[in-house]
Amino acid sequence: MAAVSYELVKQCSKTGARAGILHTPHGSFETPMFMPVGTQASVKAMSPAELKTINAGMILSNTYHLYLRPGHDLVEEAGGLHKFMNWERGILTDSGGFQVFSLSDLRKITEEGVKFRSHIDGSEQFLGPERATEVQMALGADIIMAFDECIPYPADYNYAKDSIMRTTRWARRCLDAHTRKDQALFGIVQGGMYKDLRAQSAKDLVEMDFPGYAIGGLSVGEPKPLMYELLDHTAPLLPAHKARYLMGVGSPDCLVEGVMRGIDMFDCVLPTRIARNGTIMTRRGKVVVRNAEYARDFGPMDDQCSCYACKNFSRAYVRHLFKAEEILGLRLTTIHNLHFLIKLMGEMREAILQDAAADFYKEFWSAYKA
Amino acid sequence: MAAVSYELVKQCSKTGARAGILHTPHGSFETPMFMPVGTQASVKAMSPAELKTINAGMILSNTYHLYLRPGHDLVEEAGGLHKFMNWERGILTDSGGFQVFSLSDLRKITEEGVKFRSHIDGSEQFLGPERATEVQMALGADIIMAFDECIPYPADYNYAKDSIMRTTRWARRCLDAHTRKDQALFGIVQGGMYKDLRAQSAKDLVEMDFPGYAIGGLSVGEPKPLMYELLDHTAPLLPAHKARYLMGVGSPDCLVEGVMRGIDMFDCVLPTRIARNGTIMTRRGKVVVRNAEYARDFGPMDDQCSCYACKNFSRAYVRHLFKAEEILGLRLTTIHNLHFLIKLMGEMREAILQDAAADFYKEFWSAYKA
Repeated sequence: MAAVSYELVKQCSKTGARAGILHTPHGSFETPMFMPVGTQASVKAMSPAELKTINAGMILSNTYHLYLRPGHDLVEEAGGLHKFMNWERGILTDSGGFQVFSLSDLRKITEEGVKFRSHIDGSEQFLGPERATEVQMALGADIIMAFDECIPYPADYNYAKDSIMRTTRWARRCLDAHTRKDQALFGIVQGGMYKDLRAQSAKDLVEMDFPGYAIGGLSVGEPKPLMYELLDHTAPLLPAHKARYLMGVGSPDCLVEGVMRGIDMFDCVLPTRIARNGTIMTRRGKVVVRNAEYARDFGPMDDQCSCYACKNFSRAYVRHLFKAEEILGLRLTTIHNLHFLIKLMGEMREAILQDAAADFYKEFWSAYKA
Repeated sequence: MAAVSYELVKQCSKTGARAGILHTPHGSFETPMFMPVGTQASVKAMSPAELKTINAGMILSNTYHLYLRPGHDLVEEAGGLHKFMNWERGILTDSGGFQVFSLSDLRKITEEGVKFRSHIDGSEQFLGPERATEVQMALGADIIMAFDECIPYPADYNYAKDSIMRTTRWARRCLDAHTRKDQALFGIVQGGMYKDLRAQSAKDLVEMDFPGYAIGGLSVGEPKPLMYELLDHTAPLLPAHKARYLMGVGSPDCLVEGVMRGIDMFDCVLPTRIARNGTIMTRRGKVVVRNAEYARDFGPMDDQCSCYACKNFSRAYVRHLFKAEEILGLRLTTIHNLHFLIKLMGEMREAILQDAAADFYKEFWSAYKA
């Protein structure tokens, strides 16, 4: 029995959208789903109790960050990441590839892996397929990710081609290094904006029979229509009986567009990051609650929302908290944004179950301003 | 019927300690009690829901801060402070005197009141007895405080004498300006470290028949034994059927010593401030959870504590959160410290009800390191 399996509950008859259940050692979670990001073993500003209240299922954490601080050995000694951060539900760890490659000047890529300098103390560090897998086994998430290269946008064709071939070789090495039976290792399809490279990457990884697949390297600066075009092209190349995870995508419109193309899982720092800047997500688009126009607005942040923040506090109060730099302000906007995306996915799931994804899509776009 | 009344439930037969109930328009609260401070209409890092979970009864807010931002008129328009910050239980507002006088170079005192510059935008502002009372009536707390001068330590005798006489004249003017029947105005005994001035201040204010009395101007830098000596002297000068509130005192030992001398109410930023620095309060004294020695300590922050933080997270995790500058870290230490002080007061109340305050005191000091 695989540690993690995807159960397809309903395939929309008119669109690519699908509703499913992701079974993991820490519970079964309905898809499509948005996974809040807890980079350093904490979803910024949230407690685990609050995450449960907003129905978070799986959350994300990061190999690069935890490897450097507090160290995977310490987390393992604590009994693993679930116990360390007191989160009984699902956890997915990213491999650290994305972060290491983002260091640009501070890293050097070889076939072996990536040498880089720690952003904390400048010390020389190394992550490669085996090391990233070993670290993720110590952390003990339910789903771990292959160590890959996420190439920038735009990228030269030949560089992109070399990169996906290396990423595929690395994926093989990750599979070979992965020995924990109670966690699943997902492969990551790369290929930049080149359809033939996406097809090649998908084909090679599908042959390796990963228990689930991510699409990486999108939402890296390209126009949204181009991202959607690549999703149209790539998602159908992945097996229908396995979960499909679109990495690093978190705006409401991109989530809706992704689900329509058959994506089951999403993660992104966007909702928590913009929350800390005083911006909330709504079905009508963003609202910058911190703005002066809301100083005497005694209505809720989002009048369509039932979260703790919207039920109990006014825009005027939240704005005051931001102006006064009170922590409660960013706590409230964070609760709202995560609740909003999780609920959006739940509502879309209901629509899919009723074979009404297309109606949902139309209704969403009739109100939403990107 | 007075807006606020103190009900003496039990006077300890051997010490000054007493257990009571403070009745307010927003509920009745058991005393002795510690009141968390929410200077800017938010107890730093806490939500109202969490404050209820740790059994907070009354909380404090500040006239000076709310007058400048967001403005008392805005709070009044929101329906008052309770509604603005979503706190249905008791609120006490300090008069702003303490903050205005702390501005040192930025303020000028006259018989009329104090001219000062805003710490936010440098604008010229004024607070005096009438204005501070008017602002506090607009905010709408259950208990408001007279506008007083809190003199520094040490202070010249003649300055202190002039100051308490002015504070007494100001107290009279506050009483005259106060017209809201649903809130109580407390007087504040001052007098620095001079017993005769404390006696004079207490006598004058008691003659004015305030519904409750605070002792101000202690814990301003003097040695603790001197503070206790002044409490021994001053508390008995206040009427036994009214609440006694020791302002700005919040270390566990000072709370215990204060209760033994007949104090019913305390407030202080100390528990929340040191929490944000990674320090917690315990029955054995302070623990700097942020310290390296706790990096692999997988036990709770305080093994005698039942708060959300101590029940669910380890010292190692909380230390990691502080090192990684995660907001959850200071949330957890804040929850713990407030829970600790509120519970300490509850336990002391139980001991008083059993006429065992002296035993409690002895047991407390057998473990506590100040």
